[in-house]
This record gives sequence, structure tokens and C-alpha cells, in this order.
Amino acid sequence: MAVSLGELAGRFGLELEGDPATTVRRVGTLAHAEPDAISFFANPAYRGQLANTRAAAVILKPEHSKDCPADALLAKDPYLAYANIAAMLHPPLAYSPGVDASSSVATSATLAEGVHVAANATVGANCQIGERCYIGAGSVLGENVVIGDDTRLLANCTIMHDVVIGKRCIIHPGAVVGADGFGNAQGPAGWVKVPQLGSVRIGDDVEIGANTTIDRGAIEDTVIEDGVRLDNLIQIAHNVRIGAHTAIASQTGISGSTTIGKRCMLAGQSGLVGHITICDDVVIGGATMVTKNISEPGFYTASFPAERDRDWKRRVARFRRLEDLANRVAQLEKGTQKK
Amino acid sequence: MAVSLGELAGRFGLELEGDPATTVRRVGTLAHAEPDAISFFANPAYRGQLANTRAAAVILKPEHSKDCPADALLAKDPYLAYANIAAMLHPPLAYSPGVDASSSVATSATLAEGVHVAANATVGANCQIGERCYIGAGSVLGENVVIGDDTRLLANCTIMHDVVIGKRCIIHPGAVVGADGFGNAQGPAGWVKVPQLGSVRIGDDVEIGANTTIDRGAIEDTVIEDGVRLDNLIQIAHNVRIGAHTAIASQTGISGSTTIGKRCMLAGQSGLVGHITICDDVVIGGATMVTKNISEPGFYTASFPAERDRDWKRRVARFRRLEDLANRVAQLEKGTQKK
Amino acid sequence: MAVSLGELAGRFGLELEGDPATTVRRVGTLAHAEPDAISFFANPAYRGQLANTRAAAVILKPEHSKDCPADALLAKDPYLAYANIAAMLHPPLAYSPGVDASSSVATSATLAEGVHVAANATVGANCQIGERCYIGAGSVLGENVVIGDDTRLLANCTIMHDVVIGKRCIIHPGAVVGADGFGNAQGPAGWVKVPQLGSVRIGDDVEIGANTTIDRGAIEDTVIEDGVRLDNLIQIAHNVRIGAHTAIASQTGISGSTTIGKRCMLAGQSGLVGHITICDDVVIGGATMVTKNISEPGFYTASFPAERDRDWKRRVARFRRLEDLANRVAQLEKGTQKK
Repeated sequence: MAVSLGELAGRFGLELEGDPATTVRRVGTLAHAEPDAISFFANPAYRGQLANTRAAAVILKPEHSKDCPADALLAKDPYLAYANIAAMLHPPLAYSPGVDASSSVATSATLAEGVHVAANATVGANCQIGERCYIGAGSVLGENVVIGDDTRLLANCTIMHDVVIGKRCIIHPGAVVGADGFGNAQGPAGWVKVPQLGSVRIGDDVEIGANTTIDRGAIEDTVIEDGVRLDNLIQIAHNVRIGAHTAIASQTGISGSTTIGKRCMLAGQSGLVGHITICDDVVIGGATMVTKNISEPGFYTASFPAERDRDWKRRVARFRRLEDLANRVAQLEKGTQKK
Repeated sequence: MAVSLGELAGRFGLELEGDPATTVRRVGTLAHAEPDAISFFANPAYRGQLANTRAAAVILKPEHSKDCPADALLAKDPYLAYANIAAMLHPPLAYSPGVDASSSVATSATLAEGVHVAANATVGANCQIGERCYIGAGSVLGENVVIGDDTRLLANCTIMHDVVIGKRCIIHPGAVVGADGFGNAQGPAGWVKVPQLGSVRIGDDVEIGANTTIDRGAIEDTVIEDGVRLDNLIQIAHNVRIGAHTAIASQTGISGSTTIGKRCMLAGQSGLVGHITICDDVVIGGATMVTKNISEPGFYTASFPAERDRDWKRRVARFRRLEDLANRVAQLEKGTQKK
Repeated sequence: MAVSLGELAGRFGLELEGDPATTVRRVGTLAHAEPDAISFFANPAYRGQLANTRAAAVILKPEHSKDCPADALLAKDPYLAYANIAAMLHPPLAYSPGVDASSSVATSATLAEGVHVAANATVGANCQIGERCYIGAGSVLGENVVIGDDTRLLANCTIMHDVVIGKRCIIHPGAVVGADGFGNAQGPAGWVKVPQLGSVRIGDDVEIGANTTIDRGAIEDTVIEDGVRLDNLIQIAHNVRIGAHTAIASQTGISGSTTIGKRCMLAGQSGLVGHITICDDVVIGGATMVTKNISEPGFYTASFPAERDRDWKRRVARFRRLEDLANRVAQLEKGTQKK
């Protein structure tokens, strides 16, 4: 698809410094863009690449246009403008409606218009699949799953019985939604399974990463509100609630019954203990464990950055003698006070 | 299913304070139970919800019955009693025996009576599947897998060749049992794969969470003993042994050849290095790395809770100047001793 | 398969102390080897097991041959010699070429000679599968996937559209290669998805662990060079590059656009932030977070080992009073200087 800069400027409300008739066909990085590509400049670290780019046009902030060797589309948020332009130039792979002969769809399932069920997918009894949904190859939907319009399950996804998923969601390969929560009571002869009787409710415009797991609730539902973004390999335990537009990076774990507010951002490998509440607009640093309620927006963290092993080991040894050091300081203070 | 409180009291050996003819049909939370539901009270944090519950009955400790506005079933361990009652009121989804036409079952595989093989599942050569097992949609069993009676593989599970699984196990979607352990020898031209020739043996009554991975042994087997409970996204490396009734929370990793005792509890995101031994009845805290043998039961931990980022950064800076601080204290002591 | 020690010595260039006519049929551990097995001794911790082994032969370093009760194959690197001998005695499961009737292979896909497509696998349009490849049961290949000769996708793997995989790779069950990277721009009404338009290129002789995820690039490709070894449940974000022969242990996460050099080793549960560069020959300790470029080879770490919870809690409390301690030391110094 070829689009003129004039058309892009008009459609996305951007100011153009350059020739409106210039056309671009695809996106590219500053460093490697071909002359028919449009690029963007958002991270000052790449200033050198901007100076040397061969891109036909670059999306950037007005204050950087003087450094741009190509036509410039000026945007307050160049990354956002880039996202919209990239989506226009590169629409997602198209699929034609239809049910692959190798899939297995229960006769009691309802498929709305335009649904594609790919090879070797399984759709259980009484499922209701919305218009234009894509049920990818190898995916499994248990009984009574409800999926809103335009949602895509890309491949080998598992959605267990009674889960409800909103519209325009994207569920990446290997994600598991609605497996049993981890509920065990201690009996005289070992653990007794606590039945997990709730389900999972996922809002609209939610994206769930590859091999991420979202457990069903114990009695009531686990809830993922609208617009949430979950990266890969995340664990969401039973009865968690994640507020709208919160984004969580890879390998983070949220323990049972914890509530996260809206517009939060959790970096990778962070972990939240169970039964706590995080308010709106909280940012959690990487590899950080949160053990208590957070009731004020802000940035919270608790992890040490890597050092040379010999330096680190020395620090750990010092840390372990901290009590001794404190005692010695107290002793010195006593001596001072005596005088 | 409607059950009277009298029947529940009799069947589970609980004392009833209230009307034995009251019937309940389902479970509910204290906060949201309908008048036909039974709830439980185990966590003192929910005392306010107990006072206002609309549940027909509540399972609780004898000492809390005076605070209960509904009929009360008295239990030493209300959560355990709840688990049993919930299982009675809400039995797992039933399935009828049979082999789905879209599945692929090797002619040399043996399916005992009552087995269900769901859509698009694959059962390899010489597998032996016990009575009433459920092989969920999209699951793959390699050659020579042996599964005991009443075990359920829920969906998209992968069980590699020669793995042995006991009775009454539940394997959640996406779990992988019996993939190769991570064995590599350094050769002159790069890594040389060390063949992983052992298998995995899983006892009875084991539950394995979604997308959890349990690797096969290098020479001998990886072993999961009876009654073990594994949450989601856990890594169990080759030749690990996990003792009976140990429970491990999500995203924990156990490195190769480590042995964990019986009745241990590992919190989420903990990690054990390889070739160590943890005795029975050990509890490991969240996000804690264990680097040495543990030979005494007890609670072990090593992780910092999140703080305001600016406070944390200040602490890290102090930590990095700890050596300097210790030197200054030594200097002060020297000055004192001189006098 | 029975092989004589003489043949093993000759083929792998090892010195034999013992009878060249002795035959072995399989490998075994020092502790449990049967008399027809060959074992190896590499870890001094197992010296006691060496003394008592019933193995027919043991592979070990020349300096340990005097402690060996059996025939000895002398190797500079016994583990490497063991890897080669084990592979010879125990070749991987054989499969016959062919396409299972329950699989779904696009008519536009090209399968070279000797390919096996197992049950319920899906091969998308225009895929090119090299000679003798194994596409395991339940695996899904999107459109335009290219796979080199002798690569094996073991089961339930997902390879998304346009991914390129080299020769002789092994991809373990549940791995996902080529899911969208986690790219989101903040729009006025919530997150806007940034299209992920790059792909993933994987070199030759790469091994990818169970349920590991490797995301496709945002504009250019994510790259895994030759000979890389990835354990289970690892996250590789978009536009990461991993240098040849680097090995990464389980549950490690590499954030977007980070570059790792050649021959690095990352222990389990480590994490690298985005947009950094790690040079060749770096070793990262377990559960260590790397936040900055590393430009010198060596061992880097930052994690605390578990302690008794009461000891640890005391340490954390001391740590939190470190600023107070430093102030008191400064006060003492002031007093000293006054005099």
C-alpha cells in the first residue's frame, strides 16, 4: 500500500514539513529504512541514526524537525503517531470466514457471521463466538465460552469452560485462560483440592501474551478490565482484578485476590503477594516484590542491579555483619557520652 | 443439587447451630452469597462481611459462631470443611466415555474402560491409559506413556514418551511433562547436547498447573511424589525429586538434581539452585533464592519488599557505601583505643 | 546396541585403561549403573559413588583413574566424552517420513524429502520444511515459515508466520516463536497496539526449551544465532539478539532490543532490562537483574541467598536504618574532629 504524506498528515492530524506528494509504502527503522519507508524518532539515543537515515519521511516532535534530513511529520507523541501509521500501512493478516474441516466445533456452539475456525481447533458445547472472530489452529475452547466480536485467538490457546472474553481482544499462542486457581486445604491425609467455581471475565481490547496463564476464580470471577495489556509468561491467580488500561510486562506474577488499579504499569519479573490492593497509576519496577497495599500513585521498586560477582559477594558479607557494625557504633556512642 | 445442613453436618462430622432442614444449593462468598448458598469464614479480615452475609449458612470455627447471623456449621478447619462441601455441591464437569473422531489414537495404545479422548488429542504408540481417564482436547501423549485411573489432562497438555503418571492426577492446560532436561557439554565447536535418557514419574493425587514444565531425567528419572501440588508456570528441571504433599506456588524454579522433602511449601517466584537437598517441612518465602542445603524445618526467605523508588535508590546507594562506613567505624574505634 | 570399549576409545580419541573387548549397552549413573553400563565421573562430590560403582566402565580424567574400580576411559573433559558416547548408545527416537492423516498441511506448503508431520499438526500456506524435519503432534506453523533440514518441533509448538529456523534445531513442546512483541503506545483512550512487523530468525543447532517464548521484532527481526541453548519458560522480547553459543537457563527474561554476546551463560531467573548490550563471554548469576551495558567479560551477580526468616527480617530492618547509622557515624566523626 502506497500512501502520500499529505494523506497521512490529514488523517492523523499531523503537521507536514516536506512534500505532500511523497509516498511511503512501509515502515522502517532510522538505521535501515529503505527510501520508500517512513520511520520515527522518539528516543534521543538514536539522534545519530536520525541524521543518517535514508527514510523518505520521519515522524518526530516539532523541536527535532531541524535535525531531520527527510520529510518530517510533526507529532506531539511520535510513537503514538507511528503506531497508527504502521497499522494503516501494514494491516494484520487477513483470513476468510469459514470452519476448517480438521477442526471440531460442537453442534450446539454458535458462530456469528465472519468467524474463522482454523485447523485442528476445538470449540466446545454452547460456545458463543462473535462476529469476525478468529479461532486459531490448535486452540481449545471448553464449554459455554463467550467471545465478543473481532477477537482473535492466534494459535494453541486454551480457554476453559464458562470464560467470557470481550471484543477486539488478541490472545497470543499458548495462553491459558480459566484453568483452576491454586486452592488447597490441608487435610489429615494431604492436600484437599478446593473446587474453583468462579470463572474469568475479560473486557474489551485486552491483549494477552504467549503462554500467559489467567486462573479462574475460587467462588467469584477473576476479572481483567478493558484495555489491559499482558505480556508473555505472566501468572494471574484466582480472583485477581486488574484495572482498565493497566500494562504488565513479562514473567510477572499476581497472587490470589489481589486488586490492581487502572493505568498501572508493572515491569518484568515483578511479583505481588495475595490479598493486597494497588491503587490507580502505580508503577512497579523490574523484579520487585510488592508485599503490602499501595494507596498512593507513584513508582515503587526493590531490586539490586548486577555487579561484578566479587564486589557483590563482598557487599553481601558486609550486609551480614551490619548488626555487628551497629553494635560497634552504639559502643562508640556510649564511650562518647561517658566523657 | 440441594443438600440440607443436617446432611452436611452428618456427612462431614460438623456440629450444626441452626435448622437441620435448611437447604443450600451452592457456595458463595460472605459478601455476595445468595440466600440459597453456604459460605465460610476463615480469615479474620472478613469479619465485617460475616456480620452482613446473606448466606443461608456459614462454616466457621466454634469460637466465631456468636458473630454469625446465619445458621452455622462448626469446624475446626473451616476451609477444609468448605473444600469438601464445595466438592459435593459442585462436582467436576462430567464427560461421557468415548474417543472423539478427530483425535488420533495409536492402534497399539490401550484405553481402559471409561476413558474419554477429546477432540484433536493425540495418543502415541503403546500408551496405557487407566480407567475413566480424561485426555483433553489438543493434548499430546508420546509413545509408551502410562497413566493411572481417574487422571485428567485438561487441554493442550504434552506428555512425552515413557512418562508415568499416577492415579487421580489433574494436569492443567499447556503443562509439559517429560521434555528434555537442559544438559549441554562444552565442545570445541560449541555446545554438545547431552541425551536426556531418564523419564518422569509422577505419583498419585498430583496436580500440575497450567504451562508448568517438568523435564525428564538425564539418566535416571525426575520424580514427583504423591499428593504434590504445583501451581502454574513452574520449572522442574531434570532429576529433581519433590517429596509427597509438597506445594509449590507459581513461577518457582527448581534446578537440576535438587531434592525437596515432604510437606514443604514454596512461595511464588522462589528458586532453588541445583544439586541441593531441602529437608521435610521447609517453607520458602516469595522471590527467595535458595543456594544451599536446608537440613532444619522452618521458614527461610531473602527478598526485599517494594518501597518508593526514591527511598529504595537511596538505600541501594547507602548499601554500596557500606564498606566505607565500616572503615570509618574501624577508624573511630582505633582513635578511641589510642586514648 | 552393544559397543566395545576399544571401539569407543578409538572413535572418540580416548585412552583406555582396561579390556578393549568389554562391551557396554547403555549409560548409567555411578550409583545405579548395571554391569552392562558405562558411567562418568566429573563432579568430585560423587567420589564415594565412584568407589562403589558397578558400572562396566567409567569415563573420567586421567588423574582419577587410580580411584576407579572399573575399566576407565580417560578424557580431558569426561562430561563431553559422556555426551558423545550417550548419543551413540541412545540415538533419538526414530520416525518414519510421512504426513499423518489427521494433520493439516496447506497445499502451497513444500515438504522436502523425509519430513514427518505428526497427528493434528498444522502447516500453513507457503511453508518450506527442510529434509528430514519432524513436525510434532499438535504443532502449528503459520504462513511462510521456513525450517532448515533435520530440525525437530517436538509437540504443541507454535511457530508464527514468516519465522525462519535453521538446521538441526530442537524446539521443545509448548514453545512459541514469533508471537507479537509487547509494543504499546499511550493514546488518549488507552493503549494503542504498535504493529509487530519484524519476524524471528533462528540459526542452526539452536535448542529452545518447553514453553519458552521468543517474540517477533517490531520492525526488524529478533535474532537467535547459531548454537544457542535456551531452557524452559524463558522470555525473549522483540528485537533481542542472542550471540552464538550463548546458553540461558530457565525462567530468565530478556527485555526488548537488548543484545547479548557470544558464549554467554545466564543462570535461571535472571533478567535483563531493555536496550542494553552485553559483551561476549559474560556469566550472569541466578535471579540477577542486569540494568546496564556490560562491556567486560566476567561473572556478574546481585541476589541474596535464603536465610532463616527471622534472621533475614532482622537484616532488612537493619538495612532500613542504614541512613540513621551513617548519620550517627558522621556525628561521632564530628565529635572526634572537634577535639
